[in-house]
Amino acid sequence: MKSDFLALAVPGVQKLSPYVTGKPIDELARELGIDPAQIVKLASNENPLGPSLKVLEAIRAELPELTRYPDGSGYVLKQKLSERFGLSPELITLGNGSNDIIDIVARAYLAPGLNAVFSAHAFAAYPICTQAVGAESRVVPAIDYGYDLDGLIKAIDDHTRVLFLANPNNPTGTWFGAEALEQFLSRVPAHVLVVLDEAYIEFSEPGELPNGLDYLDRYPNLLVSRTLCKAYGLAGLRVGYAASSAQIADVLNRVRQPFNVNSLALVAACAALDDTDYLAAGRRLNSAGMAQLEAGLRELGLAWIPSKGNFIAVDFGRDAAPINAGLLREGVIVRPIAGYGMPTFLRVSIGTEQENARFLEALSKVLASA
Amino acid sequence: MKSDFLALAVPGVQKLSPYVTGKPIDELARELGIDPAQIVKLASNENPLGPSLKVLEAIRAELPELTRYPDGSGYVLKQKLSERFGLSPELITLGNGSNDIIDIVARAYLAPGLNAVFSAHAFAAYPICTQAVGAESRVVPAIDYGYDLDGLIKAIDDHTRVLFLANPNNPTGTWFGAEALEQFLSRVPAHVLVVLDEAYIEFSEPGELPNGLDYLDRYPNLLVSRTLCKAYGLAGLRVGYAASSAQIADVLNRVRQPFNVNSLALVAACAALDDTDYLAAGRRLNSAGMAQLEAGLRELGLAWIPSKGNFIAVDFGRDAAPINAGLLREGVIVRPIAGYGMPTFLRVSIGTEQENARFLEALSKVLASA
Repeated sequence: MKSDFLALAVPGVQKLSPYVTGKPIDELARELGIDPAQIVKLASNENPLGPSLKVLEAIRAELPELTRYPDGSGYVLKQKLSERFGLSPELITLGNGSNDIIDIVARAYLAPGLNAVFSAHAFAAYPICTQAVGAESRVVPAIDYGYDLDGLIKAIDDHTRVLFLANPNNPTGTWFGAEALEQFLSRVPAHVLVVLDEAYIEFSEPGELPNGLDYLDRYPNLLVSRTLCKAYGLAGLRVGYAASSAQIADVLNRVRQPFNVNSLALVAACAALDDTDYLAAGRRLNSAGMAQLEAGLRELGLAWIPSKGNFIAVDFGRDAAPINAGLLREGVIVRPIAGYGMPTFLRVSIGTEQENARFLEALSKVLASA
Repeated sequence: MKSDFLALAVPGVQKLSPYVTGKPIDELARELGIDPAQIVKLASNENPLGPSLKVLEAIRAELPELTRYPDGSGYVLKQKLSERFGLSPELITLGNGSNDIIDIVARAYLAPGLNAVFSAHAFAAYPICTQAVGAESRVVPAIDYGYDLDGLIKAIDDHTRVLFLANPNNPTGTWFGAEALEQFLSRVPAHVLVVLDEAYIEFSEPGELPNGLDYLDRYPNLLVSRTLCKAYGLAGLRVGYAASSAQIADVLNRVRQPFNVNSLALVAACAALDDTDYLAAGRRLNSAGMAQLEAGLRELGLAWIPSKGNFIAVDFGRDAAPINAGLLREGVIVRPIAGYGMPTFLRVSIGTEQENARFLEALSKVLASA
């Protein structure tokens, strides 16, 4: 007798659709039968600078220890984060990317009968991680693709345990300022954990957006989630961190898998945090690339959402799927975001000058032939 | 007003104690104020060979792509596993180590009101992952530290969804043969997912223990969990895999984090699977080291549990904590397993000839002074 192992899965998981990742270069190369080097990928908000030399050096130095387990406590990385951001180590939870942080929060604080509040057009991990534990997603409509902060507050009820808030937001690139954040935090009930997702914060100039870490002291229900996969260039190695009250960090560290962050990621993260030149160079490249893309889009008569991330959501005013298909045939991978309720948009990561030019050229060709 | 974020956590998590990892070398070096190179660590069942040169080469070749996300589907590694073990790729779930596989299974199939059955003295991840989702652990007493297979069957009820079974078992090193496995599987009800954890299978000679993959066709409720962290030497990079029916793999892949396996782990795993010489050399080293340790223990008049893993559980017949403390003072890290219900034992990983000798020497000194 054969059992139905879909029906036997827990209800939350039965209804789960997995995250759709950016199309890998090798996959498109296989499909088109062309050299991967000819493909431009602007689909996953990756750092176009390539790896930091200091990071590579730290990884090479760690390679002889590869047969050893990682330090499960992440002692050295926590010390480094502590020095760098003035955070006591017991406030920190390390994650296998910030996706892991979001997942750990959901596992710790959400369950059937409880809910998480977040905005429409926000990161797909929020609904996925909420669904995986059988909790309800309360999705608040956006205003012009930006957050309706009042609406988010109003959506909170007694069963709300988590509120996900990204600044800037992915995939829209929208943001809010210090005053709005302060006012928002002061209105959130104390029983609701606010997850302030700052995955893209390092692409704005320091001081341009509020720094979530500055609010931890006053708001014990605040958790700030950061990643080293974007501006620090460690997407391949998966490393993120959360800063919160010591009590919340203690709970999250119970749920965290003991070796969730691998040993090369631990040393790479330390080196990346020290490489402030790399971060600054990435910011400059991003700012120049954003200007280049905006100029190109303007020339093509296209609309987009102003963004403080390393990506830009372009609105074609009609179904974007055929345009995406055309770009793929040209060897350019960007991200369709119909799954984010934005079927007329494509999200384009900021690349190098050449990559941005290749995208604009391909787009122009696709639009002309459409 | 400040909320109690321990009380707000889901019930399963509130009662969760995190996994206690092997003490890292650097941590003991800091405590003793000595050079890490002077410390011998035989605590985490790591491969004493050091990394495979083919693995290091594959990692170095991948480093320029570090700023790219991993291929979330693990296409290439699944192809490699498929060729190597004759498994269709849709039967495979990749994990961030096999701990991740166990965790994913628990999230998919366990919840409050359901239970998991496993033996006493089994891997700590079974009760931890079961507790994290609020399910019940039904722990079946062992017979002479080995599995009571009849007892495990008898412990199953209508609310059992998962049965964890390791061959060989960690931390005891005990095992069972093909006939026992076949008989066992034929008696498990079809609604119970049997997780056959073969983390240490590669340390035995091929054919010495039953190969779980051979039973997948006949038992659609079987999942075989494997890791590349032990015999393949990739502990630092975290990579494991599960083989199961396509339906179970589909469910697990929904729960799996999209980038749970990092990009260096993906290429390292492919290289490791190809390096059959490394695997054979590790097996020889392990077999010689086991003989060396057994001879040394015999000389010291100590008892141990015969093991088919890369570790051995030594019974001191009295509280082993002071002996462990003495070994630490000598710069030797082994694993206390009081948390596994074995307070009179220490688990010692098989090291190189020199490491084993250092351990035996330190142990002899500690026992003499006790």
